[in-house]
Amino acid sequence: MAPVITLTTDFGLKDPYVAEVKAVILSISPDVVLVDITHEVEKFNTRMGAYILASASPYFLKGTIHVTIVDPGVGTKRQPILIQTQHAYFIGPDNGVMTLAAKKEETIQIRKIVNPRLMMPETANTFHGRDIFAPAAAYLANGSPPEEFGPKLSKIETPAFAEVVRRNDMLVGEIIHIDDFGNVITNFAEKEVADFKDENAIGVKLKNDGLKLKFCKTYGDVGFGKPLALIGSHGFLEIALNQGNAAEKFKLRNGDRISICLRSARKSDTWAT
Amino acid sequence: MAPVITLTTDFGLKDPYVAEVKAVILSISPDVVLVDITHEVEKFNTRMGAYILASASPYFLKGTIHVTIVDPGVGTKRQPILIQTQHAYFIGPDNGVMTLAAKKEETIQIRKIVNPRLMMPETANTFHGRDIFAPAAAYLANGSPPEEFGPKLSKIETPAFAEVVRRNDMLVGEIIHIDDFGNVITNFAEKEVADFKDENAIGVKLKNDGLKLKFCKTYGDVGFGKPLALIGSHGFLEIALNQGNAAEKFKLRNGDRISICLRSARKSDTWAT
Amino acid sequence: MAPVITLTTDFGLKDPYVAEVKAVILSISPDVVLVDITHEVEKFNTRMGAYILASASPYFLKGTIHVTIVDPGVGTKRQPILIQTQHAYFIGPDNGVMTLAAKKEETIQIRKIVNPRLMMPETANTFHGRDIFAPAAAYLANGSPPEEFGPKLSKIETPAFAEVVRRNDMLVGEIIHIDDFGNVITNFAEKEVADFKDENAIGVKLKNDGLKLKFCKTYGDVGFGKPLALIGSHGFLEIALNQGNAAEKFKLRNGDRISICLRSARKSDTWAT
Repeated sequence: MAPVITLTTDFGLKDPYVAEVKAVILSISPDVVLVDITHEVEKFNTRMGAYILASASPYFLKGTIHVTIVDPGVGTKRQPILIQTQHAYFIGPDNGVMTLAAKKEETIQIRKIVNPRLMMPETANTFHGRDIFAPAAAYLANGSPPEEFGPKLSKIETPAFAEVVRRNDMLVGEIIHIDDFGNVITNFAEKEVADFKDENAIGVKLKNDGLKLKFCKTYGDVGFGKPLALIGSHGFLEIALNQGNAAEKFKLRNGDRISICLRSARKSDTWAT
Repeated sequence: MAPVITLTTDFGLKDPYVAEVKAVILSISPDVVLVDITHEVEKFNTRMGAYILASASPYFLKGTIHVTIVDPGVGTKRQPILIQTQHAYFIGPDNGVMTLAAKKEETIQIRKIVNPRLMMPETANTFHGRDIFAPAAAYLANGSPPEEFGPKLSKIETPAFAEVVRRNDMLVGEIIHIDDFGNVITNFAEKEVADFKDENAIGVKLKNDGLKLKFCKTYGDVGFGKPLALIGSHGFLEIALNQGNAAEKFKLRNGDRISICLRSARKSDTWAT
Repeated sequence: MAPVITLTTDFGLKDPYVAEVKAVILSISPDVVLVDITHEVEKFNTRMGAYILASASPYFLKGTIHVTIVDPGVGTKRQPILIQTQHAYFIGPDNGVMTLAAKKEETIQIRKIVNPRLMMPETANTFHGRDIFAPAAAYLANGSPPEEFGPKLSKIETPAFAEVVRRNDMLVGEIIHIDDFGNVITNFAEKEVADFKDENAIGVKLKNDGLKLKFCKTYGDVGFGKPLALIGSHGFLEIALNQGNAAEKFKLRNGDRISICLRSARKSDTWAT
C-alpha cells in the first residue's frame, strides 16, 4: 500500500507551483498517492490553513504525511520542521499552521529539517515548499527516519487563534473559517457549547447584536434561507442559513470575534430571522 | 487494475470537504484511483451537476463508480441511493442529480443505502458525502455487492430540466449549462436539431428576439468574436462566439428558456452578428 | 513504475472537459499517474500556458508526457503534434504553447499526429484535447513509438514572446506571467540580468517610469509591503512586494513591456517604495 502525501497550500491553482511540488515528490517517491487538501488557503492566512488541515487530517489513514505550505516568512529565520504524532506526520514551516492539527494527537517528536541530503540540491530562498518540504515528505515516504532530518526541538509555535475565553456570562471566541457555502465556523468546540445552549436555541453575540438562533441537527431543519446554529461536521459551532450564505447576511469575516451567552443571560435576545 | 471512483460536488476547492471525502475513501479502499469531475457545481444546482455528470461519465471505463454530492436536502428525507447501470455505478442523493447520467444506460438496479456497516461509524447530519456516500463507494470498490447496501427501489426522481417540448413551429428547451468559456449549452440533442437547421443556418429564439445563427462544425469557422451554433462535443446544441463569451454577449443564464424554429418559420430572422 | 502524464489547459475546473480528458487517458492506459499542472491558464493565452509548462516540466521525471491544451485554433489548420526531447514528451497544438518548454531540452523528433488508430474513433472538431491529444498520450504511455503517430516535421511554431532585445543601455523584455500572489515575472533569465544589477539594486523601466528596486534573495529581505526584485524560483527576474501584490501596485499586466537598465545608466532613478 503506497503512502499518502497530502498538500495544503495558499498557492492557488493557476500557477506552476503546486505541480512543481508534486513533480519533486514523484521524482523521489514515484508510488506515493498525492491528495490535495486545498491550495486555496487565503494568501499567508495561517489561521485558515490551520483550521483546514486540522479538519481534514484526522480522516486520513495512520502514517499519512501532511505537507503544509502557508509560509509568509519563507527564507527568513522561521524553521522548517517535521512533527511526528501517533497518527500522522506534518511537514512545513514552524509558524503555527500545523499546530491545531498536531495537537489533536499525542506528539512523538519534533525535528528541525536541516539535512541537505534530504533536500533539493539547490534550494531557492523563495520556494521551500518545492525545495525542502516536498523532498522531505518524499524521503520520509521512502523510509528515511525522522532522526535523519535534523535535531530535536522541544516545542512548536502555538498560535493565539485557538483560544476561547470565559468572561462573565459569555464565552468569547472567534470565527476561524468561512466556507464556500458562506457557513461561519467558530472555534467553539462541541463540549464548550454544551452549557450555553438549550434544546432548541443558543444566544450569540455578533459585534454588538445579541441574537437567538435555532439550534438544529441539520440545515434542512429550518425553512429555506432561514438562519440556524449547529455543530458542524468538523465538531465546531457553526452559524448557517439553510441553502443561503450566513457570512453575507450577518456581514461576518474570518477572524471576527464572536461570543455565546449562558442560557440565563439571554432572556432579552431576539430571534434571528 | 484499480477501480476508478469519480467525484462531482458543489463543495468548491477551498474547504476541507473534498479532502475528507477522499480520505474516507482511501482509508477503506487504498488502491482506488480518484478522479475529480468537478467540485465547482454552483451551490445546490442539481441541474448543472446533472449535466456535468452526464457529459463526463460515458468516457470512463465500464465499472467506474461515480459519487455525486449536490445535496440541498442533506439530512432530510431525500434518500441516499446506489444506481447500477450496465456501464457504471452512481452513488448520491435521490434528487435528480444522477438521473441524466443514469438514463444514458440501461438500469440494472436501484438500492436505498441504509446498511450502517457500510457507513462511517458516526454519520453527521450535514455531511452524508463523507459519512455515507464516500464509504459506500469505497466498499463497493472493495467488492460489496449492491444488495448489501439496502432494499431495492423501483424508480428514481426525474427532474423536469431534461425535457424539450414541441410548440407549433418551435422546439422549446432550456439552457442547461454555461461553460467557463461562456459557451451556452442547451438541452437540444443532435437528433432533435436535425429538422430545424439547414446546411449553414439555424433559427433561435432567445427571450423575444428571433435570430439566425451560422451552423458550423467548429468555432474557427467564423471570424474572431463572431457568433455561431454547433453541436458541441457533448452532443447538444451549443451557442458560442469564436474566442469570445456568448453568454455575456446574449445575456444568457443557466435555466433560461431557448427555442429553435423550423426552417420554414424563420424567413424574417436577422443574422446574429 | 507507472508513467506520469501531466495536463496544462485553459479549461477551468467547473466544466466536464478535464474529466473527459482524464477518462479517455485512463480508459486506454489505466495505470498512468495523472498530474494537473494547471487548468487555469487564461482562455486562449498561449503565452501564459507556455510559461507555466516551461516552469513546471523540468521538475518531472525523465520520460514524463506533457499534454497541453490551450488551443484557440482547434479544428482549423494548426497541427496536432508530438515533440520528443531528451527529457520528456510534449503533446498538443503547434501554436507555440509548448515551445518554451521544449526548447529547454535537446529535441529528438517532432511528429504530426495523424494516425486515426491512435485517436478516439470519432473526433469532435471542437475537442481535440479529448479526442486526439488524450489518446495520443495514453498510447504513448502504453509504448507506441513516436514514429507511429505520423510524419516527421522539421520545426515547430516559435512564438515572439520569448525574446529579449538589447537597445542602447537597456534590455527590453516583457511580462510573461503574473502569479496568484501578484508577483510579476519577466522574461529576463538570470544570466541576462547579471550585467544590469549590482549587489543590492537594479534599475527597471515600467512604462515611462525609471525606478530603482532593491535586489534581494527572498521576499522577507524587505519590510512588509515593500517592493523588491529577485530571481524567482523559476530562474527569471521577478518584481514583488513582501506579502503584497506587485502587479496591482505598479498596475502591470501580462504582456506589458519592461526594460532593465545598465548600472551606469540609472544614476537618476528614484527608489521604488
